Amino acid sequence: MRIPLDRDSPVPLYQQIQQFLQDQIRSGTLLPETRLPASRTLAASLGVNRITVTNAYAELEAEGLVYSRQGSGTFVAAPLVTPPQSADDRISPDDWPLWQQELLSRTWLLAQRGLDRLLESVSHPDPICFAGGIGDSRLFPTDDFRKALQAVLRHDGTEALGYGDRAGYPPLRAKIAHVLTSQGIPAHPDQVLITSGSQQALALVAHLLLRPGDVVLIESPTYSGAIDLFRSLDVRLLGVPLDEQGMQVEQAEDALRSGRPRLIYTIPTFHNPTGTCMSGHRRRQLVALADRYNVPVLEDDFVGDLRYEGRAQPALKALDPGGQVIYTSTFSKMLMPGLRVGFLVASGPVYERLLACKRVTDLASSNLMQQALEAYITVGRYQSHLRRACQMYHRRRDAMLDALSRYLPASARCLPPQGGLFVWLQLPAGLSANELYPVAAEEGVTFAPGSLFFPAERAQPYLRLNLAMHPPDVIEEGIRRLGRAVERLLARGENQATSIPPHKAVIT
Amino acid sequence: MRIPLDRDSPVPLYQQIQQFLQDQIRSGTLLPETRLPASRTLAASLGVNRITVTNAYAELEAEGLVYSRQGSGTFVAAPLVTPPQSADDRISPDDWPLWQQELLSRTWLLAQRGLDRLLESVSHPDPICFAGGIGDSRLFPTDDFRKALQAVLRHDGTEALGYGDRAGYPPLRAKIAHVLTSQGIPAHPDQVLITSGSQQALALVAHLLLRPGDVVLIESPTYSGAIDLFRSLDVRLLGVPLDEQGMQVEQAEDALRSGRPRLIYTIPTFHNPTGTCMSGHRRRQLVALADRYNVPVLEDDFVGDLRYEGRAQPALKALDPGGQVIYTSTFSKMLMPGLRVGFLVASGPVYERLLACKRVTDLASSNLMQQALEAYITVGRYQSHLRRACQMYHRRRDAMLDALSRYLPASARCLPPQGGLFVWLQLPAGLSANELYPVAAEEGVTFAPGSLFFPAERAQPYLRLNLAMHPPDVIEEGIRRLGRAVERLLARGENQATSIPPHKAVIT
Repeated sequence: MRIPLDRDSPVPLYQQIQQFLQDQIRSGTLLPETRLPASRTLAASLGVNRITVTNAYAELEAEGLVYSRQGSGTFVAAPLVTPPQSADDRISPDDWPLWQQELLSRTWLLAQRGLDRLLESVSHPDPICFAGGIGDSRLFPTDDFRKALQAVLRHDGTEALGYGDRAGYPPLRAKIAHVLTSQGIPAHPDQVLITSGSQQALALVAHLLLRPGDVVLIESPTYSGAIDLFRSLDVRLLGVPLDEQGMQVEQAEDALRSGRPRLIYTIPTFHNPTGTCMSGHRRRQLVALADRYNVPVLEDDFVGDLRYEGRAQPALKALDPGGQVIYTSTFSKMLMPGLRVGFLVASGPVYERLLACKRVTDLASSNLMQQALEAYITVGRYQSHLRRACQMYHRRRDAMLDALSRYLPASARCLPPQGGLFVWLQLPAGLSANELYPVAAEEGVTFAPGSLFFPAERAQPYLRLNLAMHPPDVIEEGIRRLGRAVERLLARGENQATSIPPHKAVIT
Repeated sequence: MRIPLDRDSPVPLYQQIQQFLQDQIRSGTLLPETRLPASRTLAASLGVNRITVTNAYAELEAEGLVYSRQGSGTFVAAPLVTPPQSADDRISPDDWPLWQQELLSRTWLLAQRGLDRLLESVSHPDPICFAGGIGDSRLFPTDDFRKALQAVLRHDGTEALGYGDRAGYPPLRAKIAHVLTSQGIPAHPDQVLITSGSQQALALVAHLLLRPGDVVLIESPTYSGAIDLFRSLDVRLLGVPLDEQGMQVEQAEDALRSGRPRLIYTIPTFHNPTGTCMSGHRRRQLVALADRYNVPVLEDDFVGDLRYEGRAQPALKALDPGGQVIYTSTFSKMLMPGLRVGFLVASGPVYERLLACKRVTDLASSNLMQQALEAYITVGRYQSHLRRACQMYHRRRDAMLDALSRYLPASARCLPPQGGLFVWLQLPAGLSANELYPVAAEEGVTFAPGSLFFPAERAQPYLRLNLAMHPPDVIEEGIRRLGRAVERLLARGENQATSIPPHKAVIT
């Protein structure tokens, strides 16, 4: 075999050999099952070291182009397939296996896909987005956190890249338990389970406690990611309405009696999407009811730290008579979403089973991120970041409420949230947020339409605005655009029948 | 209010104020609802800047010790609870809520817990562990990978810490698609979904496709993490035995006809725990059967790259007539477990639904790790690491087989694996691996007892040895100890009745 070698090339000789053989195999010049020359023979004929040929063969073998059979040599492997031109080269769903066609009816992901498509459809040159579910990424302490990560890698690279403790990095669990206890939530490190964001905490609880057909009691509206999760499990959702004091717990009792739910899912503090905070009285009522009806409570406290005014209410977990409430929170919202570090707190036999669920779900979370987070919290930076963000978002909330009062018609209403990330806006009677969306997008502003947050998808007069993502001047401009879109829709409505039927108010 | 301040102390003044008030509140000297002095008043009386007092109050508020009411001032918050002394201060399970007591019957996690306890029980001063499921952590390219991480953080910190693409970092998906295609598995980047290790890929498929009571066809024995996952979903497991050619596909057909499984889970290449590699003929048979009986195949290719000899077999995915096979693999086994980056490849409507499952499970995987991995693969380091590890493990496999032939009685049998991480050892007739375990631990060697890998837990004459974790001299010493333990157990057995009933051979 004659292989042209360029000894002056910066490409190493073994790579030149490899490249030549690779081309010969890919082009079909060397047919499958062809025996390549023994490395010693080829090395001699090319005038190179035998190791050079061995390395070239090893590269080819790693790529699946040749294989070696002990004692008999190296052979060209079966022909390669060509990569597909696109993900789905077949068009009709009928072409897929039957079991895949059956999946087409699982539509529980369509709401989220709908939103994605809505967001992609915005053609304005400089749109202002109020749709997101996190804080302002420009405030995220990326530099500080990067330094923490680098310090961990420098001091402790091997451990940071190992499996680590399945329940989470123990010093981080201890820190979380300490902070929670100081906030009135008694927690032991062994009751803390680190999760990949709070979404995983919700998923673990749901997977452990729910089976298809079970009933889950939720606030209506509630977090769309929870609705999607529950839908993915084929459970039935029983919605309890809210008012300015949060979930209307009196109505929850009826639902508990008649619906026999297996789980209560609630966001008592700075609720997503409405921003309401459950009153202390109702918190006590809800925990007592859960206890009486033997139903576990999953408390989602995703931005409880973000209070701008008013008195802090105790977490439901702080009122827990013992083992009734599973508490979950996250660092991703306030630091950076890519952190993917959340946690849950649970006591009793359920804890060990949630840990086992975590193990079968993804074995363990990345140790590296947990170690960096622990270091970051320890030097006090988390607390000061939180304080700074809180002050900043407070001003932004005020700017948004002010702009809403100036640019929206008086018949549009909202409840000033005492904290958190969201303002829940109710449009003037007859307007649907889904209909408003394309008009607003034309004007250069986007939001999360209310229909995403209800268990039954239908046109809703509500929309969720993120108050934290932009500085006050951008908020003002965004709300001005929103006001213009509402006016256009109202003007259009005067020439048409009412676009959605009169609705029972969710928040009045 | 008189607060003693030490102006020479390195502790900032605001922290001294905070500390003093904190002590007063925690000790009960300052009662709840006490109004703290206005910041201006206190600042004047202490002779400090007003900002100093504001900062101290903000710290106290962040800790939940005080709260501020707009317009009326700062007040001491309700008393704090004390942290619990231990995770479970109540002893009797009867004290937990009824719904928690019902969980006690969910015993699907006990096998893994049993192993953990077994491993903890080893009292030998210098035990040699063959129980693990990963490669040798000393060979992991931690330094190289750390450099890749640091480069990503330096160049691209903010994006690396954001949510990123929900399906995974696009350049990494493109790279994976490219490598798979070169190995004969046609894959488009849009068919690749990055997961948190391959365990999450298994979990996503199981959560999407299975409901309680469904039947899953597995190899028996099989990967214990898959057994636990399936058990957590209350599905029934139908085991098909293996021989030296892998799953006995002829028997699978009977099971497909009578059991109507909803999923086939298989590890065709270097099977866990037996190390066998399914023959090409059986691979084609299995894919054809799955197609005929309309059952999806979940192909777990966790160490397919780790071949020491023999001809590479095509992945089942490479034989897929279209949308029938979901393929999963991982980088965690060969690089470092803490990476938590695996992936699945699927085509057809199932892909989008798996992506939605990923979203409800944990939103997305860490972008940072994916970017670093992509960079690491691009510079060619992954391939050369793989080659080095492969050569190393090949020698270790030979050392283990050699030691087994020398130190174990001839009636102990094993099948030399052509690749992968495991040797599956069958003990002499009548010996149980669970009984051997404590004796072996006394001698200073541990392994994974075979009972972990069977859907029905019972004493088994098999054990799994990890061939990759130790250099040849340690392997030799470990197997010598194992031989001694087997001899002791055999000697004990001569004075007793046979400890386990005669068994149908799994691999003969």
